[in-house]
Amino acid sequence: DTLETQLNVLENFNPVVPEAYKEADIVMLGNLHPMVQLGVLEQMTVKPKLAVLDTMNFWMEDAFIEDLKKVITKVDVITINDEEARQLSGEYSLVRAARVISEMGPEYVVIKKGEHGALLFHENNAFFAPALPLEEVFDPTGAGDTFAGGFTGYLTKTGDISFENMKNAIVHGSNLASFCVEKFGTERMEGLSNGEVTERLMEFKQLTQFDITLE
Amino acid sequence: DTLETQLNVLENFNPVVPEAYKEADIVMLGNLHPMVQLGVLEQMTVKPKLAVLDTMNFWMEDAFIEDLKKVITKVDVITINDEEARQLSGEYSLVRAARVISEMGPEYVVIKKGEHGALLFHENNAFFAPALPLEEVFDPTGAGDTFAGGFTGYLTKTGDISFENMKNAIVHGSNLASFCVEKFGTERMEGLSNGEVTERLMEFKQLTQFDITLE
Repeated sequence: DTLETQLNVLENFNPVVPEAYKEADIVMLGNLHPMVQLGVLEQMTVKPKLAVLDTMNFWMEDAFIEDLKKVITKVDVITINDEEARQLSGEYSLVRAARVISEMGPEYVVIKKGEHGALLFHENNAFFAPALPLEEVFDPTGAGDTFAGGFTGYLTKTGDISFENMKNAIVHGSNLASFCVEKFGTERMEGLSNGEVTERLMEFKQLTQFDITLE
Repeated sequence: DTLETQLNVLENFNPVVPEAYKEADIVMLGNLHPMVQLGVLEQMTVKPKLAVLDTMNFWMEDAFIEDLKKVITKVDVITINDEEARQLSGEYSLVRAARVISEMGPEYVVIKKGEHGALLFHENNAFFAPALPLEEVFDPTGAGDTFAGGFTGYLTKTGDISFENMKNAIVHGSNLASFCVEKFGTERMEGLSNGEVTERLMEFKQLTQFDITLE
């Protein structure tokens, strides 16, 4: 059974955090068994300023949900897709779903809607970044991970974890994810230049920024 | 047969454009039989600066599609939902769908994605406005018409039909549509104040505006 094998591998996977990383300000917990995520967090010798958790519906099954809820209480940001947010919260409205999930622990809730973009919720504030409209989506594999990496990387690089800067981090993550889907696997990301990223950021601005004033 | 009756009514509906409207700069053709839309356009004594057409899948059936294609050649802007854009163009990618539809006539293509917002395409430019995330959508009836009215009304009021100002018009239309769905029918729109509209515009800005610069 492939699933069984995968689970065994995951349950016996105990990543060791290198010494140099044990005082990191920002920790990104990739989408794995909640107990693996918790294990990583517990190896940190200094509590991170920001712990980000990515998860999926698989870990919301009966066998894992209690573990998931445990690790969720320990993080500041959760990234999750729209259907999973609905499943975890029992709410259809994403506004309500985010509120319920936030009450489980994370102050910031990022809901990913694939081709329909991503929402960031914090207290009564919301921010939305669209996915860039593309001629063709070649391979969506890895888009979520690329988004999470871009989001966390931007916060780490700027050293600013305010809500206003998280908006920028969401845009940066969406920007990077728009490249990921253009080719198979990691192909597009490997050859990506800063110039291309900056150029596409201009497209994101064109796509979303406006200047309206009403009387 | 209700459909048959409706069709008879529609086919015998010949709206008469009042004299005072026959030189209007901007004309909005509501979602009706394409020949009714064409009939209105032909009553204009001066060619409008901007003709906007709303349509739907019903008019893409064999019986109407040639009429629809005829009126589409005469307009500057088309508003259409995502599934209908795909049906009309035969393209899944909305970028490609917009290009195909634009080649049929309208220089500007607005693709409405309901709760996922609206896209505006013009040449190689795109703009996106999200729908405001709401706690509850009470009744989506009329949201598309409210959007079209807000879009066209904003352009008329400002007298500026540039692409940059159309972005604002898209935001204004989305803003108004977000009220429409909060109550049944036209209830919410009837009592709506300018103050409420301006306040929600601030929410749209909070939701979409960011300030990122990359090195």
